[in-house]
Amino acid sequence: MMTDLPGIVVTGASGRMGQMLIRMIGDSDKMQLTGALERPGHDWIGRDVGEAMGGAAAGVLVEDDPLEAFARAQAVVDFTSPAATVEFAGLAAQARAVHVIGTTGLAPEDLEAIKHAAHHAVIVRAGNMSLGVNLLVQLTKRVAAALDEEFDIEVVEAHHNRKVDAPSGTALMLGEAAAEGRGVSLEDVSDRGRDGITGARKKGDIGFSAIRGGDVVGEHDVIFAGPGERLVLRHLASDRSLFARGALRAALWGQDKTPGEYDMIDVLGLND
Amino acid sequence: MMTDLPGIVVTGASGRMGQMLIRMIGDSDKMQLTGALERPGHDWIGRDVGEAMGGAAAGVLVEDDPLEAFARAQAVVDFTSPAATVEFAGLAAQARAVHVIGTTGLAPEDLEAIKHAAHHAVIVRAGNMSLGVNLLVQLTKRVAAALDEEFDIEVVEAHHNRKVDAPSGTALMLGEAAAEGRGVSLEDVSDRGRDGITGARKKGDIGFSAIRGGDVVGEHDVIFAGPGERLVLRHLASDRSLFARGALRAALWGQDKTPGEYDMIDVLGLND
Amino acid sequence: MMTDLPGIVVTGASGRMGQMLIRMIGDSDKMQLTGALERPGHDWIGRDVGEAMGGAAAGVLVEDDPLEAFARAQAVVDFTSPAATVEFAGLAAQARAVHVIGTTGLAPEDLEAIKHAAHHAVIVRAGNMSLGVNLLVQLTKRVAAALDEEFDIEVVEAHHNRKVDAPSGTALMLGEAAAEGRGVSLEDVSDRGRDGITGARKKGDIGFSAIRGGDVVGEHDVIFAGPGERLVLRHLASDRSLFARGALRAALWGQDKTPGEYDMIDVLGLND
Amino acid sequence: MMTDLPGIVVTGASGRMGQMLIRMIGDSDKMQLTGALERPGHDWIGRDVGEAMGGAAAGVLVEDDPLEAFARAQAVVDFTSPAATVEFAGLAAQARAVHVIGTTGLAPEDLEAIKHAAHHAVIVRAGNMSLGVNLLVQLTKRVAAALDEEFDIEVVEAHHNRKVDAPSGTALMLGEAAAEGRGVSLEDVSDRGRDGITGARKKGDIGFSAIRGGDVVGEHDVIFAGPGERLVLRHLASDRSLFARGALRAALWGQDKTPGEYDMIDVLGLND
Repeated sequence: MMTDLPGIVVTGASGRMGQMLIRMIGDSDKMQLTGALERPGHDWIGRDVGEAMGGAAAGVLVEDDPLEAFARAQAVVDFTSPAATVEFAGLAAQARAVHVIGTTGLAPEDLEAIKHAAHHAVIVRAGNMSLGVNLLVQLTKRVAAALDEEFDIEVVEAHHNRKVDAPSGTALMLGEAAAEGRGVSLEDVSDRGRDGITGARKKGDIGFSAIRGGDVVGEHDVIFAGPGERLVLRHLASDRSLFARGALRAALWGQDKTPGEYDMIDVLGLND
Repeated sequence: MMTDLPGIVVTGASGRMGQMLIRMIGDSDKMQLTGALERPGHDWIGRDVGEAMGGAAAGVLVEDDPLEAFARAQAVVDFTSPAATVEFAGLAAQARAVHVIGTTGLAPEDLEAIKHAAHHAVIVRAGNMSLGVNLLVQLTKRVAAALDEEFDIEVVEAHHNRKVDAPSGTALMLGEAAAEGRGVSLEDVSDRGRDGITGARKKGDIGFSAIRGGDVVGEHDVIFAGPGERLVLRHLASDRSLFARGALRAALWGQDKTPGEYDMIDVLGLND
Repeated sequence: MMTDLPGIVVTGASGRMGQMLIRMIGDSDKMQLTGALERPGHDWIGRDVGEAMGGAAAGVLVEDDPLEAFARAQAVVDFTSPAATVEFAGLAAQARAVHVIGTTGLAPEDLEAIKHAAHHAVIVRAGNMSLGVNLLVQLTKRVAAALDEEFDIEVVEAHHNRKVDAPSGTALMLGEAAAEGRGVSLEDVSDRGRDGITGARKKGDIGFSAIRGGDVVGEHDVIFAGPGERLVLRHLASDRSLFARGALRAALWGQDKTPGEYDMIDVLGLND
Repeated sequence: MMTDLPGIVVTGASGRMGQMLIRMIGDSDKMQLTGALERPGHDWIGRDVGEAMGGAAAGVLVEDDPLEAFARAQAVVDFTSPAATVEFAGLAAQARAVHVIGTTGLAPEDLEAIKHAAHHAVIVRAGNMSLGVNLLVQLTKRVAAALDEEFDIEVVEAHHNRKVDAPSGTALMLGEAAAEGRGVSLEDVSDRGRDGITGARKKGDIGFSAIRGGDVVGEHDVIFAGPGERLVLRHLASDRSLFARGALRAALWGQDKTPGEYDMIDVLGLND
């Protein structure tokens, strides 16, 4: 293990994102894996994580004590559940490790706890870690501000058939950006689940549609439909590694930052 | 007025479809306009229909007596309302004129009345008169039969912001074709208005999404999303004249047919 | 004729764009038609332009003397040919009328002559008068600047089957914007007419594809294809009236401006 | 090694397709890996193929003698080069093993040699092994036959930035299907590499466009653009495993067939 590269701990090591992160860190020459966490009782505990994944040995044993792992590392990359993430936020702050949070479904009280932890350490949190999606959010806000209500805004997303909620978190984020660009509140103009005798479209509404099928990783369209023309901003994710790649970029970016809560717009330097 | 070309009556002459039909008949060298109907009391009654439309004289006065108009004509082209269409069906049958019906929203009892009229005259009725849409319906049925339930079927449509119902009649027609191809009933597998915590997609479902905005004439996608691949059958209508063109083609086609109820698949010769 | 509304002259009155402009001016309550030009010898000369178009009288006779027409007007809207446009630019400057130029295919010497005329009058010139396309140009430049060469840029356009050149002027304008965003010259990185054994795509290239068919008004995609994701900026024109609408907006906008050459970014207030 | 499952030999074991095939066979309960070939001198020769791939042992050593490997197997799955494939075809025929050929770029004399080998054994050969693409080929032929020359046909494909030829083999296969549907020869109507002053589109032409960028696996559109409407048949491959899955399905399908050359239409039972 080279000691001069930033050490990364991956939480939820046996999950799909966990395994992808571990493989990408192994392939990188800018960081090294120093820890792999699973919950107490998981049958990977104590095994070499590379071998547990069905490959060559990685030289890192899966463990169940987060604080010990965080203390040895410079960053924690975390795509788990709200409860676990809140706990990890406190422990990472204690260990002064950068905490990159890709966990979704966080409740207001979870966000409060994370905010508190960010007084002591760098936290990067984003609903979607992709470069393109974060650019798309910015473009959406800008176009919504430039075009008036003669242009109807619709957000259309497509995801795989195992997704359990609609619209996607990213679609809602895009809707929020459009509403903000127009200076309105999304909840006042949101039009979801369109079906049956709906009447004509209400001017100023922002509509949402959710397509589900196959193994589509994630596609989002923001449509601005005006008289005689349409402008469409589209993002296609073809590969879940996208999110892992963004998270690892955030982990490196956070190394020399002062404590606080950041998002991918900060990481990517996209602020206007 | 040349007497050797089939004479056409247009109902609802002042409406958008009515005016388009009248213009297209005027431009055609295969048929001639012999009548233009409006409801009693309409302020176009008694005026030359060309001048009422703001153009040159057409040599045909707008009238309100359907039977008299039908008796002079070989075909009636009708995009009006269910009540008017049912009345016209009876009168056209009496006059032995081909009745082309593009009216939507017909109830079961309306369909019954139309079926009855078709004992005496040729009726061509279609939810959508476009060549491409009718081909799409056939392809959808065929692909749904070829692919198993590993492929999720979604129907996505987009229309202008004045449309009052969702999904479109054409989308439902495509859903029916897909269900028929799979040997199931659409009402058992239809998934509409997807929103909120929906749970994972149910295998075998046929999903519908409706996008509304701007002046989009009509777009329909039938998506078959399977493992690692998607097949998409898409129709784009860029111009409402499409429907008028199909209706006039049906009016000519019907001239030498025996009484009965036909659809655009018959007109286009697409039957397998 | 109301004397308080800005008077507009339409050049090439019998052409498709000319007729559309005349109809839109007739429907507007913010401007009035005061002149309709055709070349000497055209058979519309001396006729009422509305009647020549097959409609009601417009109260304006088609004429062939540009200077006389321009002297009575506040603006000239011009979608003709390079030679005619250069002549009109000089005459409009003499008459101190705003000259809106939608003509394409202008050579460097034509642009020079237009620039000279702009010392004396307001000229608004754009390769594409649509609001959405001009926004798209700006977004393209911005995204090209934000994403590095890991993202391959492709410009794809589709037009009707009568178009005689490829790629479209708008596609090239988008390519220029992308090149500018990256700080390179388009001619160094442009990859057109891809066919045969091309070898792998060269990093940094900007590719162009041209689809031709049917009556497609105009569609443009700018694709940024990176590892695991794509961002696509798309514009769809469904109606040629789009360009007429933009040109008339420019004619009004120019009324109170100081002499100089402007583009649609100025008219639309989209400058950063 | 279970002796009751069909044994498969994978050629080009160290390549991207080779490794994917080996992994999929390992995960299958319908077949077993019995051989892994590489060319003489390759540094994987003699090693366990699973370990060489960086994973757990597979119980099969990489070897360089095709005949010996084929003699022990029921099928050979082969995505290599034309020269190797021609040699393998002869040897597989000798061993009476099913030979599944996904190799592209085969010259007429290669096809001749393969045809000869098919007198003695089952050969399944396809330019594209995907279920969806083979359906698309059939639909294209059918739609081209149903629509007349008023509909312009364009084939548009997108692939990753490492692809060295344009248009793709699959695009050409689709163009052939369209030409066949119309009863013309593709070489008479093919319009490729459109660029510059092309003149208006020639009626009856079939156009091709090739988009290159990022890591796009493969997308194909067949567009039928007519007056006022477009019909688009689209296939999206999101995952290269698609081709491996089709090839393995062909290997199993071929087990009980009589000698001869087959394609995926046969395997999938899509013949009309």
